Amino acid sequence: MNKIEHIGIAVKNLEESNELFSKLFGKAHYKIEEVASEGVKTSFFKIGESKIELLEGTNNDSPITKFIAKKGEGIHHIAFDVDDIYAEIKRLKNEGFKVLNDPEVSGLKKGADNKLVAFLHPKTSNGVLIELCQDLKPNVE
Amino acid sequence: MNKIEHIGIAVKNLEESNELFSKLFGKAHYKIEEVASEGVKTSFFKIGESKIELLEGTNNDSPITKFIAKKGEGIHHIAFDVDDIYAEIKRLKNEGFKVLNDPEVSGLKKGADNKLVAFLHPKTSNGVLIELCQDLKPNVE
Repeated sequence: MNKIEHIGIAVKNLEESNELFSKLFGKAHYKIEEVASEGVKTSFFKIGESKIELLEGTNNDSPITKFIAKKGEGIHHIAFDVDDIYAEIKRLKNEGFKVLNDPEVSGLKKGADNKLVAFLHPKTSNGVLIELCQDLKPNVE
Repeated sequence: MNKIEHIGIAVKNLEESNELFSKLFGKAHYKIEEVASEGVKTSFFKIGESKIELLEGTNNDSPITKFIAKKGEGIHHIAFDVDDIYAEIKRLKNEGFKVLNDPEVSGLKKGADNKLVAFLHPKTSNGVLIELCQDLKPNVE
């Protein structure tokens, strides 16, 4: 794993939180992106080599809407950048981690920011929802 | 804010979690440190320019012990590296953030890893406990 790619934070109102985090970081977000398949609208701030991704659910089935209903606003997941997501998934499964959206079962999802993503279930990682993500290079998809 | 300095993760058993996160990252932790004043034992992993800090409470009054009793294991806080923690605290107070251990009231705390630290209350930052930290240079303390 190369770096913390981003930290995902679940928020109720993306517009208000954009304003709040702009004050926190002393700079504006650089991108808004909607991932319709996941029911989320996202906003990104760059901090060093990493990003902060604010996430607002866009419907009641969105994992973010459900997360906030259960736990309130707050940190939702940590994403790590990997070079070869298929190799990492295989390695982590062998180590006993439970992989959600396992490519051998359902195929990998495309997340925000042009990446292939997979998640590790928090029950096998001390309550932390972990995302693996690999940059999609042009013409590889 | 220069970078994500670390992400703090509350764990019940540091030894077991060290083993788990070693498997996750494919490498061992590089340091164990006890911060007696905070009632925590910590362990660090380096990932890119940032760190993952595992935290185990060492007594019942530890904020980590209380956090786990209330919410279970999981992500506890995000720490950002700053150049001048006093200037950042002043700026963030003016922006409406609630600063815990305000230096004007109680003086700054020394955290793990030889740093001056302050926290922003999650109620003013979308449920996220935010730590500011500044490296203590030799002979400056």
